[in-house]
Amino acid sequence: MPYHILTRESVLEYVRGHPLFDTAFNPGAALESEEIGDGNLNLVFRVLERGGERSVLVKQALPYLRVAGEGWPLSKARAGFEARALEQQHRAAPGRVPRPVWFDEEMAVNAMEDLHFHTVMRAPMVARVQFPELGYTVGRFLANTLFATSDFALPSAEKKRLSAQFLNLELCELSEALIFTEPFYVAPSRNRYSPALELEVGQLHRDTELRSRVAHLKYRFMTQAQALLHGDLHTGSLMATLPDTNQADARAQGDIRIIDPEFAFFGPMGFDVGLFMANLLLNAVAQGGHAPDLLERQNYRAYLLKQLLECWRSFESGFLTRFETARSPSWLEPEFQKSFLNSVFQDSVGFAGCEMIRRTIGFAHVLDLESIPDPLERVKAERGALELGRALIRSHQKIESIRALERILLEHLSLEHSAHEVSP
Amino acid sequence: MPYHILTRESVLEYVRGHPLFDTAFNPGAALESEEIGDGNLNLVFRVLERGGERSVLVKQALPYLRVAGEGWPLSKARAGFEARALEQQHRAAPGRVPRPVWFDEEMAVNAMEDLHFHTVMRAPMVARVQFPELGYTVGRFLANTLFATSDFALPSAEKKRLSAQFLNLELCELSEALIFTEPFYVAPSRNRYSPALELEVGQLHRDTELRSRVAHLKYRFMTQAQALLHGDLHTGSLMATLPDTNQADARAQGDIRIIDPEFAFFGPMGFDVGLFMANLLLNAVAQGGHAPDLLERQNYRAYLLKQLLECWRSFESGFLTRFETARSPSWLEPEFQKSFLNSVFQDSVGFAGCEMIRRTIGFAHVLDLESIPDPLERVKAERGALELGRALIRSHQKIESIRALERILLEHLSLEHSAHEVSP
Repeated sequence: MPYHILTRESVLEYVRGHPLFDTAFNPGAALESEEIGDGNLNLVFRVLERGGERSVLVKQALPYLRVAGEGWPLSKARAGFEARALEQQHRAAPGRVPRPVWFDEEMAVNAMEDLHFHTVMRAPMVARVQFPELGYTVGRFLANTLFATSDFALPSAEKKRLSAQFLNLELCELSEALIFTEPFYVAPSRNRYSPALELEVGQLHRDTELRSRVAHLKYRFMTQAQALLHGDLHTGSLMATLPDTNQADARAQGDIRIIDPEFAFFGPMGFDVGLFMANLLLNAVAQGGHAPDLLERQNYRAYLLKQLLECWRSFESGFLTRFETARSPSWLEPEFQKSFLNSVFQDSVGFAGCEMIRRTIGFAHVLDLESIPDPLERVKAERGALELGRALIRSHQKIESIRALERILLEHLSLEHSAHEVSP
Repeated sequence: MPYHILTRESVLEYVRGHPLFDTAFNPGAALESEEIGDGNLNLVFRVLERGGERSVLVKQALPYLRVAGEGWPLSKARAGFEARALEQQHRAAPGRVPRPVWFDEEMAVNAMEDLHFHTVMRAPMVARVQFPELGYTVGRFLANTLFATSDFALPSAEKKRLSAQFLNLELCELSEALIFTEPFYVAPSRNRYSPALELEVGQLHRDTELRSRVAHLKYRFMTQAQALLHGDLHTGSLMATLPDTNQADARAQGDIRIIDPEFAFFGPMGFDVGLFMANLLLNAVAQGGHAPDLLERQNYRAYLLKQLLECWRSFESGFLTRFETARSPSWLEPEFQKSFLNSVFQDSVGFAGCEMIRRTIGFAHVLDLESIPDPLERVKAERGALELGRALIRSHQKIESIRALERILLEHLSLEHSAHEVSP
């Protein structure tokens, strides 16, 4: 079927006509649909059986950036990157991503498991909902998917062949420009920020040491083909069942899923870890403008810090366990493993710093900061994000342990040393 | 024309029948041929006009390793890698590689400029012939070709697309195994070495610190897609007109060319630099078994050291000049440029160490050591190569300047501190 943009009506016909219809629905089922997308890049429909239990999510890539109208064209080839990444992640970390149902290249459609009871995590987290397994789950997901697509798990030729399927040229260029270049230079850029930040942005643009370190991180992003990354792992790419939801299936409470891998490419592992860290920290600094009560605010910050530390620890321990299965004696050398994980850690810290800065003064912002009601509080939080971002970038090549990172974060978030031990 | 192995006779017919015949020869010219290949992987014919001046080199990839007979199959796809690499190098460094004439994929043939007056450099260098421009020329060649195919010169998408044309799976796997794995582990391996080296090889296999650093270098080799490398830049991949040759064209005296880029792939720049360095150093340690006269030996060693230093310096200065033309403001940051070149330097030193070791105890040896007539002298030189190789690998992550490398080399080659100033 040649590409055409689906509607609530035509999606029903499309689904009924698909050869894999009966892997997803009962024969002859009557279908209905709703559009649930809030994204900029895609149409997202939930297609469900009338009166039945089965449903499927139909996600179609648009050939332009929705918010910008047809003036910002964007290749719908990204649906293919998403399909291939989902397949790899589903294999390496089953149950952590929506189960793929079919991929239709011509229509740029991914049909996948409909996560009925799940909510995108960013907004509930701005409202300080706690997901106690968050850090652990993301760390494990990363250990599983990144190891499985690395040279440690795959024969050299197979990994190179796989990486050639992920020449995600357009979205990589977008990340290079929006994360690593534009926020750090005056022009040309698509930067957007409050005039109250003029001073801080000016300082940043004059900070040549910082810019060199960012260039180093950008170069790693562009040349380090370590593993198949998710590529856009912020809290808007995570879904969860709310911990207090009263569900039929109690096992599913607090179930966390990783979605939207359309930015997937072969890059440095620390980029995924760092983006996740940064988005926890953006929330943490933003809480200054959301939680009027000091105790509540600091309690949530302590929870976020705990998730960040647990993410790294579960990633590290998961990766070390998998290292025992590595294909070559080279990867079994204990000192190599240690220094490799240390380099991933340093990358993570640096990438986290870049993400914090670009989400504050670059093109794409985050709800956490944008939704702070008081403009003065918002600017204060944004300053906090810029400061912490700079501190992370500055220290990333020297930082040697998760403890040292913890110390930096405790100081920046004004937390007591033992605060992260407060249990949620 | 379907693939068939060429002979001295059939190559004439093949050349006459090729559509690009008249780009290479005068119309209706009578041709003759000679086979001049000494390689293991390819047939190499010189096809020339009888009584005329024009000639062409016809290089055909064999589908197996020649020395091992048909029992070691090897994809003739490497002729394509050579053709594409030659094209890139010819563009970035015109006059430094044989001018490509045509590439015939089906026949796995590269037809190229016939370097009549040039000799492969390894043997003359074993006999201590000096090429005063060697280090400078190779350094410039590397600055030109590596910069031109890097993210500094090419738009991100173009570089990624180009790198996808160089998935040199088979030859990369061969390098990984033969350079970085087998020499450092007991089994399984294709290692070959004199029983007199048993002690040293045992020490090496028990050196876990060394093995970790080699694993680190191997990982960089496999994941650092910085630029299109030559991939096999030893003194057998260099040709030159002998400096004392009495030629009609005086300008061509001492002319140096880089040949045989069939191992080309996107990897860490330091690999090319390091292989060249290592092959100079293998010659230097081998001179202990070739030059009976101490002064003559040390004089040649000083010459070799000078070439090594000049190679790095001309690479570095050439690269810094090209950096001024870089595409993104990120790459113009002076501190980034400095730390980038430092990392290439450290890689080079580490890769040089691996190459020295694998050429001594691995599968593929070098004439420099193999041709030492006295078995005791040979073992002595081999021990020297192993020792220096280990020292380079051990120090590579700490070494900060070419001066520091010079000090290590002066000591290992028993040269006076000023010896490298002795002019050739």
